[in-house]
Amino acid sequence: LSLVDVKEDFFKVLHPKLTVLIAAYSKDKRPNVMACSWITPASEEPPLIAAFLARTSYTRQLILESKYFTVNVPTLDLLKAVWVAGTRSGRRGDKIKAMGVAVKPAKNVDAPIIDGCAAYLECKLNQAIEVGECTALIGEVVEAYANPQLFQAGAWSVERAKLLLHLGGALFTLPSGTVKAK
Amino acid sequence: LSLVDVKEDFFKVLHPKLTVLIAAYSKDKRPNVMACSWITPASEEPPLIAAFLARTSYTRQLILESKYFTVNVPTLDLLKAVWVAGTRSGRRGDKIKAMGVAVKPAKNVDAPIIDGCAAYLECKLNQAIEVGECTALIGEVVEAYANPQLFQAGAWSVERAKLLLHLGGALFTLPSGTVKAK
Repeated sequence: LSLVDVKEDFFKVLHPKLTVLIAAYSKDKRPNVMACSWITPASEEPPLIAAFLARTSYTRQLILESKYFTVNVPTLDLLKAVWVAGTRSGRRGDKIKAMGVAVKPAKNVDAPIIDGCAAYLECKLNQAIEVGECTALIGEVVEAYANPQLFQAGAWSVERAKLLLHLGGALFTLPSGTVKAK
Repeated sequence: LSLVDVKEDFFKVLHPKLTVLIAAYSKDKRPNVMACSWITPASEEPPLIAAFLARTSYTRQLILESKYFTVNVPTLDLLKAVWVAGTRSGRRGDKIKAMGVAVKPAKNVDAPIIDGCAAYLECKLNQAIEVGECTALIGEVVEAYANPQLFQAGAWSVERAKLLLHLGGALFTLPSGTVKAK
């Protein structure tokens, strides 16, 4: 079998990737949100996550200013809102309104959360590192909460939680079934 | 609906995550490999990826010494090997042998690749950043190649490529079906 060069699409080799909505306030407390799939846990103790945001991103700018953000995990019913969040900039116009979602303040950080998501992480900016054309925003997780019908006993119930896994472009896939390694 | 605290399991909220095998040579050119799911693209141009490895990891040590590593994307048929890679240390004993896989030299970097994977990224270490209990290894992708029956037109064919998505512990899920956002 001969393998073919995929250098142009190297990043899609690391997909499918869970797509989340990242939200923050502007200085005048207007909520903004973006879609992100370049995100990963970074440390269990202390609890840290890393999100890679384009340097041109408006949400990145807001997080660097406010030092707080939330990670909102949407499911299939929010696909249209995710697509709007991922393809428009909040610099011009009200993206929240275009997404058709409701926001409210987070519990313990100065950032908004998006109604109707399956789980939430509330984060305080810990470190910002320039990496190529992106900035790695390292967030300390101060709160984490989830819908108990979808996330149970420390894991997603993938048959119930229709998590959006980004394949590239407008294409997503869903997790299905479980296999045990031992 | 009331949401429940999942702070203890905050990192599993960002799963399911694609599981890869990361491989590097020791100074005496012995191949070593580990399983990793805390990995993400970090920049498209320049082409960078970020993998978060525990500071205690032997593979991390080898990569810091050799400056090169490969990312190997396994599928369901390699599940047992992935489990061995993720639960044993190469510091003691021959992990490659225990995994029952064959390795060979990468094309353009001084690191091994694992036979039978669906795709490969060959990386040169670009930056190493301490983040909590892990080290973020930023790799510049110098080669990327894939099985054309599984990765086509810049995306995984998820019905054919039984990619391993880690849920936590010994539990994995698979991607299934595609949905289009527009």
